[in-house]
Amino acid sequence: MIMKLGQDLLKIGTKNFKSRLLTGTGKYKNFEEMNESLKSSQCEIVTVAVRRVQSLEAGHIGLMQSINWKKFWMLPNTAGCSNAEEAIRVARLGRELAKLSGQEENNFIKLEVIPDKKYLLPDPLGTLEAAEQLIKEKFEVLPYINADPLLAKRLEELGCATVMPLGSAIGSAQGLLNQSNIQIIIENCNVPVIVDAGIGVPSHAAKAMEIGADAVLINSAIALAKEPPMMANAMNKAVQAGREAFMAGKLEERSVANPSSPSSGLISTPNIAIQ
Amino acid sequence: MIMKLGQDLLKIGTKNFKSRLLTGTGKYKNFEEMNESLKSSQCEIVTVAVRRVQSLEAGHIGLMQSINWKKFWMLPNTAGCSNAEEAIRVARLGRELAKLSGQEENNFIKLEVIPDKKYLLPDPLGTLEAAEQLIKEKFEVLPYINADPLLAKRLEELGCATVMPLGSAIGSAQGLLNQSNIQIIIENCNVPVIVDAGIGVPSHAAKAMEIGADAVLINSAIALAKEPPMMANAMNKAVQAGREAFMAGKLEERSVANPSSPSSGLISTPNIAIQ
Amino acid sequence: MIMKLGQDLLKIGTKNFKSRLLTGTGKYKNFEEMNESLKSSQCEIVTVAVRRVQSLEAGHIGLMQSINWKKFWMLPNTAGCSNAEEAIRVARLGRELAKLSGQEENNFIKLEVIPDKKYLLPDPLGTLEAAEQLIKEKFEVLPYINADPLLAKRLEELGCATVMPLGSAIGSAQGLLNQSNIQIIIENCNVPVIVDAGIGVPSHAAKAMEIGADAVLINSAIALAKEPPMMANAMNKAVQAGREAFMAGKLEERSVANPSSPSSGLISTPNIAIQ
Amino acid sequence: MIMKLGQDLLKIGTKNFKSRLLTGTGKYKNFEEMNESLKSSQCEIVTVAVRRVQSLEAGHIGLMQSINWKKFWMLPNTAGCSNAEEAIRVARLGRELAKLSGQEENNFIKLEVIPDKKYLLPDPLGTLEAAEQLIKEKFEVLPYINADPLLAKRLEELGCATVMPLGSAIGSAQGLLNQSNIQIIIENCNVPVIVDAGIGVPSHAAKAMEIGADAVLINSAIALAKEPPMMANAMNKAVQAGREAFMAGKLEERSVANPSSPSSGLISTPNIAIQ
Repeated sequence: MIMKLGQDLLKIGTKNFKSRLLTGTGKYKNFEEMNESLKSSQCEIVTVAVRRVQSLEAGHIGLMQSINWKKFWMLPNTAGCSNAEEAIRVARLGRELAKLSGQEENNFIKLEVIPDKKYLLPDPLGTLEAAEQLIKEKFEVLPYINADPLLAKRLEELGCATVMPLGSAIGSAQGLLNQSNIQIIIENCNVPVIVDAGIGVPSHAAKAMEIGADAVLINSAIALAKEPPMMANAMNKAVQAGREAFMAGKLEERSVANPSSPSSGLISTPNIAIQ
Repeated sequence: MIMKLGQDLLKIGTKNFKSRLLTGTGKYKNFEEMNESLKSSQCEIVTVAVRRVQSLEAGHIGLMQSINWKKFWMLPNTAGCSNAEEAIRVARLGRELAKLSGQEENNFIKLEVIPDKKYLLPDPLGTLEAAEQLIKEKFEVLPYINADPLLAKRLEELGCATVMPLGSAIGSAQGLLNQSNIQIIIENCNVPVIVDAGIGVPSHAAKAMEIGADAVLINSAIALAKEPPMMANAMNKAVQAGREAFMAGKLEERSVANPSSPSSGLISTPNIAIQ
Repeated sequence: MIMKLGQDLLKIGTKNFKSRLLTGTGKYKNFEEMNESLKSSQCEIVTVAVRRVQSLEAGHIGLMQSINWKKFWMLPNTAGCSNAEEAIRVARLGRELAKLSGQEENNFIKLEVIPDKKYLLPDPLGTLEAAEQLIKEKFEVLPYINADPLLAKRLEELGCATVMPLGSAIGSAQGLLNQSNIQIIIENCNVPVIVDAGIGVPSHAAKAMEIGADAVLINSAIALAKEPPMMANAMNKAVQAGREAFMAGKLEERSVANPSSPSSGLISTPNIAIQ
Repeated sequence: MIMKLGQDLLKIGTKNFKSRLLTGTGKYKNFEEMNESLKSSQCEIVTVAVRRVQSLEAGHIGLMQSINWKKFWMLPNTAGCSNAEEAIRVARLGRELAKLSGQEENNFIKLEVIPDKKYLLPDPLGTLEAAEQLIKEKFEVLPYINADPLLAKRLEELGCATVMPLGSAIGSAQGLLNQSNIQIIIENCNVPVIVDAGIGVPSHAAKAMEIGADAVLINSAIALAKEPPMMANAMNKAVQAGREAFMAGKLEERSVANPSSPSSGLISTPNIAIQ
């Protein structure tokens, strides 16, 4: 059975991945720590904020070059875009970025349309609009969305490669506040469901996988830990643990205690049953 | 830093253990599945219900012989005892059982005094009384208790080797319902705190370790999974993930979103920052 | 200060209401029990499923006549509509229904666009489309929505009279599973926020009001209680309690205990301080 | 049915009470605000920290005289006692205090044995020891305890008039963190179960009553609100709401949505079913 796990692949578009943990590149102290973390996370997909790179933002000069793109599949994202138009433009830049990094066939885009500056919640209409256009342009669209089952279904029907409902607000580390809606999305959708945002500790990541999510994306919880590479390692194990529990058929919650060691045994004579 | 983990040992009495996952022997379909699960859990401590074995209970004939006691440290338990007197007698039988299995120096006893047949909750007074006597008899006592910080402290002061607060009722798979009290116990106690009972999924195990528990004991959640060895493997990873997160310094929860990718970037010219 | 509560009105469109509990008319055993419940709830707004009434559904013949529409403000709803077109048609019928009941100036419509037959979750796009049209036709639109802050804001900007985010799935009695998103909606919106669906017990209703919701709508939890009129009474008190707590400035959660009775007192002499 | 509530009395020892909300006297800004709050809470039992009064602590000179003891039943408490001996002495002083206040037959004592200065958690052994002695001295003992079902049962068997499990740490306003254990206590005990400590908002109070608690004791959440009398009023309503819901037979949680307005209605002809 454990062998089967070797064949348990995450398929996005036509690409297969062994790891179900996606990570980011923001907020690290330096590229060295980032690369150590990417390595110990065993992730295969790494997301990059295209605007940040493109505008030569402080701390991001050299980011692209510091990562070995032969090892990691790039997931450009449209962070910082507040409407569909901006997101479409940045997505196209993202595709160029991937190609320049040597990933000619990479059409992935993590679509973020975020007009809200405080909680960084995504706009459902802008996201739909941008997704529609980007799908026409042959992108594999991975949209970041509020955990709305009907919206998720519509994005799937539009042709998105995955849906990425948020567990809780970006960087809040509050875990799966939207768990019930995420469960319905998992039940209803036929594309991979990747929980994005809000995962702060390994138990959050494991929980997402236990309820049947296909993958999780984690950035802040790793990058802002005191020891990012160790946390990356922890998150990788947690994602695997949650996935394996999902496949192993977990015990259901029960309100009455069930003894692991039944109380029916009786001590009558002090003899011991083994030699 | 990851190297340090190699030296991160669980010390109970004078014994050191690498694994922080303790498992049980109840409820498995057969000894083969049990042994496969013990192996894939990578546990080092295995608990055995002395009464069950001693009374040749159906399905337990041969249990002791089926386990390789050169590989696993035996933790005899007093499951099925409803008062201090019974528990003391069974503990003494447990010590004999360990010696007969070749573990001459093993004085460990998991102390359970459980008069309650429905929820299997432990009796604080009976537990204290039995612990006092067993400590006099040079046992290393690991008492199973309700998550009561004052009781835990008193058991520590009495000389117990650990305290084992319950997360939720035995076999209920409800996780850490007593989390706040367990956190206070962790803060107050100087002996290892092992969360026992109620852990149903890897995220529960990870959570216990993230808040600083020293170890967890899991039986039903593994033995009753559809694929026990796979679940055992998942639990092992979850315990490690939680422990590593605890040591890596986790990100605190925040109520306002914090962008992984700041929105300050600006698209001015469509040039790309990398060659 | 308690006097101020007399002036604490719920304003929807141009209408003012004293009660912040809205109720429904579905699922009651008979009209007598329904009317007793409406009375003991002290509600002023009652929602009616227009399709149900209009199609003379079993058990609904006579529903409209059984209610004294001089006492209760009718809130026709579009339950049973799975797309915008249907909802618009039913909304128009709802307006006729209100007028036929003697409420000439009543343009309220609770907008439900629900293609999902299992969880009865609303469709954001269909809801937006129908709201836009109904606002043109001078309806006061109260849209039932998933707890999506951006969608809520857009509906407000479109001219909706309120937003009605769901706490959890209709009839599930699970309470405020979407609490964090509802809190953001409350913070961002300038129209009344009415929590609809999922409220199963008074503590759920109180919680919604404590975090600042303007009102709640409850149907199943009252109608399906063993004693609906008593539950209606309980819900009314809970809504008031939650509202008053919100206005009274509640104590914040703290992780460390704070004694109600400080421990600084000292027993020195056994005299008593009073005569 | 609502009439029945008039006969729904809280019986402690041989005394009957209509109100199920007990309040305290600590932490108020002044006696006027305290008395206004006692009044608007409609409570009948008021607890007083005997040591505080007895030691003429700043702000407590005149406390006893400021309360009309013809209207409120005094519940002296042993706050500030860290062991059984101290608590027994203070309990005796408490009885004198009640008698001096004109309540000749009042033998109530809220027993608190709290060695822990940080979280103010009670000591199970000290509490048992003091309870035993005080019961011999004909006190009606209301012990404050951690939510331990076995301890609660033992105190009942000893002859305590009630048990008072804590929801969460005193003054923490965190609500019912020990809910599952409290539910087991309610199921097992034949004396009234009064939830004490941790109730911060009306929804917490309502929740305690909904699960079957007989009463709640609230101090900080009222006294430290910005408007204590209004919060007292809110708490009273919440307690009533929770009690009524418990008696009215509440709807159980369900994971799948159940429409309040079934979707079986059909729009065929645009006629309206009422005249």
